[in-house]
Amino acid sequence: MMEMNDHALTLHTDKYQINMMYGYFLQGTHTKRAVFEVIFRKLPFGSGYAVFAGLERVITYLQQLRFGEAEIAYLRTQEEQYREDFLDALRAFRFQGDLYAAPEGTLVFPNEPIVRVVGTIFEAQLVETAILNFVNYQTLIATKASRIKQVAPHDVLLEFGTRRAQEADAAIWGARAAYIAGFHATSNLRAGMLFGIPTKGTHAHAWVQAHDTELDAFRAYAAAVPDYVTLLVDTYDTLRSGVPNAITVAREMRERGKELAAIRLDSGDLAYLSQQARRLLDEAGFPEVKIVASNDLDEHIIEGLKAQGACIDSWGVGTQLITAADQPALGGVYKLVAREKDGRFEPVIKISGNPEKVSNPGYKEVYRIMNKKTGKAEADYLALQEETDIREGRRIKLFDPVHPYRFKYIEDYEAVPLLRPIFAGGELVYEQPSLEEIRAYHAEQLQTVWPQYLRKLNPEVYRVNLSQMLWDLKMELIHRYQE
Amino acid sequence: MMEMNDHALTLHTDKYQINMMYGYFLQGTHTKRAVFEVIFRKLPFGSGYAVFAGLERVITYLQQLRFGEAEIAYLRTQEEQYREDFLDALRAFRFQGDLYAAPEGTLVFPNEPIVRVVGTIFEAQLVETAILNFVNYQTLIATKASRIKQVAPHDVLLEFGTRRAQEADAAIWGARAAYIAGFHATSNLRAGMLFGIPTKGTHAHAWVQAHDTELDAFRAYAAAVPDYVTLLVDTYDTLRSGVPNAITVAREMRERGKELAAIRLDSGDLAYLSQQARRLLDEAGFPEVKIVASNDLDEHIIEGLKAQGACIDSWGVGTQLITAADQPALGGVYKLVAREKDGRFEPVIKISGNPEKVSNPGYKEVYRIMNKKTGKAEADYLALQEETDIREGRRIKLFDPVHPYRFKYIEDYEAVPLLRPIFAGGELVYEQPSLEEIRAYHAEQLQTVWPQYLRKLNPEVYRVNLSQMLWDLKMELIHRYQE
Repeated sequence: MMEMNDHALTLHTDKYQINMMYGYFLQGTHTKRAVFEVIFRKLPFGSGYAVFAGLERVITYLQQLRFGEAEIAYLRTQEEQYREDFLDALRAFRFQGDLYAAPEGTLVFPNEPIVRVVGTIFEAQLVETAILNFVNYQTLIATKASRIKQVAPHDVLLEFGTRRAQEADAAIWGARAAYIAGFHATSNLRAGMLFGIPTKGTHAHAWVQAHDTELDAFRAYAAAVPDYVTLLVDTYDTLRSGVPNAITVAREMRERGKELAAIRLDSGDLAYLSQQARRLLDEAGFPEVKIVASNDLDEHIIEGLKAQGACIDSWGVGTQLITAADQPALGGVYKLVAREKDGRFEPVIKISGNPEKVSNPGYKEVYRIMNKKTGKAEADYLALQEETDIREGRRIKLFDPVHPYRFKYIEDYEAVPLLRPIFAGGELVYEQPSLEEIRAYHAEQLQTVWPQYLRKLNPEVYRVNLSQMLWDLKMELIHRYQE
Repeated sequence: MMEMNDHALTLHTDKYQINMMYGYFLQGTHTKRAVFEVIFRKLPFGSGYAVFAGLERVITYLQQLRFGEAEIAYLRTQEEQYREDFLDALRAFRFQGDLYAAPEGTLVFPNEPIVRVVGTIFEAQLVETAILNFVNYQTLIATKASRIKQVAPHDVLLEFGTRRAQEADAAIWGARAAYIAGFHATSNLRAGMLFGIPTKGTHAHAWVQAHDTELDAFRAYAAAVPDYVTLLVDTYDTLRSGVPNAITVAREMRERGKELAAIRLDSGDLAYLSQQARRLLDEAGFPEVKIVASNDLDEHIIEGLKAQGACIDSWGVGTQLITAADQPALGGVYKLVAREKDGRFEPVIKISGNPEKVSNPGYKEVYRIMNKKTGKAEADYLALQEETDIREGRRIKLFDPVHPYRFKYIEDYEAVPLLRPIFAGGELVYEQPSLEEIRAYHAEQLQTVWPQYLRKLNPEVYRVNLSQMLWDLKMELIHRYQE
C-alpha cells in the first residue's frame, strides 16, 4: 500500500466527478459557477430530528485539497486518457469557492439544505463525494447518540464501539459525533488524542482469565489504577463470584483509603443483575459504587431497562451506536439547484417519478422561524435569496408543501439563517468553535424545540415549509419539464 | 485536529488495553506469553459462509506500531497517571510476537480461529482493538460482496458506495474487500490508486441539469471520453427522453467511428425500464450497448430483477454493500485461549450463561478436511497443537459439538491448516499475494465447497468440529469452574 500524504483525501471521490470535470474543461465551461445543496430526504431511526455533524472534517478536507504528483501520475494511467492540459489544471487546483453550513450540533430536518457550495462547477463537482461521505456518517451517528441521550439524560454515557466500527476513521469521527450529542467519554484513545474527548477504560475478561483467580485479577487491577477502579464482574458468575470478589476488593481498598469506583456488567439480564448487584453493594456498605452496563445496548434497550428499574448509572454503548445499526446510512444527497447562465444564477430542478424526490430549485436560504414569545422554533422556512419579507420580519405564510391548503400566517418571529458562511472565495471565514462549545450548543439546540419533536417513538413532524415564491418557481419548472 | 503521522494508528485502541498493559507491567508479568484467537460466533446476512479479509491492513498496522512522542505525551495527560517507566516501556515497544491468519479470500466459518496472536500479554493485548476493527469490517464487506457475486456471477459488478460509506477508511477498504469477492471495479479513485483496483465512472444528474438540454449534455459527455461513454438516462424521463437521446448520440458517435458503451438507469422500475430500453436500443441497431443499473441494490433485489427478466448487464451497488446495511457489524471477538504458566501454555476458558458463548480453550490448530476423492471440504476441525493424528492423516472422528451423538469417522482426507504464519517474532514471514492473486484465490475457494453451503437463502450448515481431545479438555474446564 502506498504511503498517505497531506493530499491523501483528494482522490477520496468518485471517478465520475473527475470525468465530469474533464467534460466541463473540454467544453471550456468549467469556470461557470453553480450552486449545490446537501439535503437528506428522510430522518433515520424514526427520529423527529437529526443532529448535523461533519463540518470540521469538511473544513480540513477543503483546506488540504490539492492534486500532488502521485495523484496526477495515477490519473494519467486511467483508460480515459485525460489530456495533459486538464492534468495541469488539476495540478493548479485549489478550492476557491464559498461554503455555507449549519454549525455542528444544530438540529436539522429533511428537505432543507444543511450545506451549500457555491463555486465553479469544476470545484463544486469535485467535492461532492467527500462532503457527503463525511456529513452522512457523522450526522447519522450524532443523531443516534442524541436519541440515546434522550432516554438517559442524567446517566453517564460511554462510547465503546471501536472494535465494531466500520474501519478506523469511523471509530474516531463516530466517537466525536457521539460526544457532540452528549456522550461523556470514549474508549478510543486516538479520538481522545485528536479531539480532546475524555477517555475511559476498565479491563477485559482476558484480564481475569490471565490470573489464577478472579480475586487475584481484581486485586491486581485495583493496585494498578487505584483511583479509577471499575471491575468487570461477569467472567465466571456475576452474583456468586464477580460481585462478592469486587466487594472484597472494595473493602481492602477502603482500608488503604481508596474507594472502588464501579463494577461493570457485560452479559446476562442486566435489569435483574444490576438490582441484585446494587443490593449486595449497598448491604456491604458501598452505596457509592456505580454500576456500568454494556452488551449491545441502544436507545430502546436502555429505555426498557430503565423502565424495569435497572440500577445502572452508566452505559457503555458499542455496535448499535458506532454503526447506527438499525439504519447504517443517512441518505444525504448533493443536488445542483442553480447554475450560472448569462452572468446570473438560473434555477434548475431534478424531476423524478417519485414526487418527494423532485428537488427544490434555486439559490435559496433556510431560516429557522423562532417564536419570540415562547423562544421555541415554529418551523423552518426555505426562501429564495432575493426574498426580503422574511429577512425584514414581515408576516409570512407557512403552508404544507404536500397539502398546500393547510397554512397559517405568522408574525412576531425571529428568522435565524440556518447556514453560516464557512469559506468565502476559498478562505476560511468561520471561527471554528471548540468541541466543548459544539457540545454545549447542541444541548442548547434541544431547548429550542418543543419536546414532542424529540420523542423517540412517533415524534411530531417538524415543518419545513417553502415560501410562496419558491413554491411558484418549483411548480413552474415542473410544468416546463413535463411539456 | 492534529496531523497524522506514521504511528497514526498506534492509539487506534481502547483505553482498557493500555490500562491492562499497565497492570501487567506493574505486576512484572507483562512479558508472560499468551495465545489469543479471533473468532466470530454467527454468520452475517443468513449466509452459509464468510470471506476472510483485513489481513493486509493488519500487517501494515503491526509493522508501523510504535509510540511516538506525541502518543506518549498524550498518555501522560491521562487521569490514570501512568508511571514514567511504563511510558518508557511503551516508547521502546515493537510488536515482536507471532501472528497466524487465514489468507485473505478464504472461506471461514463460525467458532473457528481466523487470526491467532501468540506473544507477550503486553503486545497481544494492545493489538486486539485494531485487529478486530479491521477484520470485522473487511470480512463483513467481502462476505456481502461475495453473496452479491453469487446471484450475478456473469455480470459486471461495480462498487459505488463511497458517499454512503461510514467515513473515508470504510470507502477504500470496503472497495478492496468487494474486489476480493469478485467485484470488477470501484468508483473510488483513492481505492484505485492505493490498491490498483480498476475504477469506473459515468456522469451524474447534475451533468444533465447543468446543460440546456439532455441531448446537449449527452453530446458533450460523448465528446469528452469517447471510448467509455455511459449515459445516465433518467434525469427527466427515461423512456421518452433519456433513451431516445442516448440513441441519437449513439448514432452520431457511430458516424465518427465510435460506439456508445452503455446507458445507466438509476430510478424507477428497473425490470420494466431495462426491458423497454433494451428493446429501443436493439431496434435502433445498438444491441451491443450495455445497460447498467443502480439504486439501492443488494443481492435480494438483483436476484429478483434477474428473475423478472431485467435486461441488465452491469450492477452499480452502493449503500447496501459498503455499509452491509442488513447487518452492519460482524461480531468478531478476540479471546484468550492459553497463557504461559510455569514455562508452558495453560489452556483457559471463558464461561458464560449462554452455552454458545463458552470459549474453546487451548492453543489449537484449525484444519480444513478435504475429501481426496471429491476435492471438496468435508468440515473444519479444531485440534490441540500437540495432536498428531490429524497431521498424519489417521482416521478421525467428526462429531457435532452441540449434539455429540451425531458423528462419523473419516479417512483418506487431506488436512489443510487454515491459518498461515504471518509474523514470527515480529518479523513478517508471509509473502503477501497481490490483490489479483487474492481475488483469484477467493474464486478457487468457492470451488472447494459444495454449492449448498453457498446458497443465499437457508444454506446448509458447514461443520466446524472439535477433536475428541479438545472436547474433553473443554468439558473438564467447564466442570472445574462450575465447582
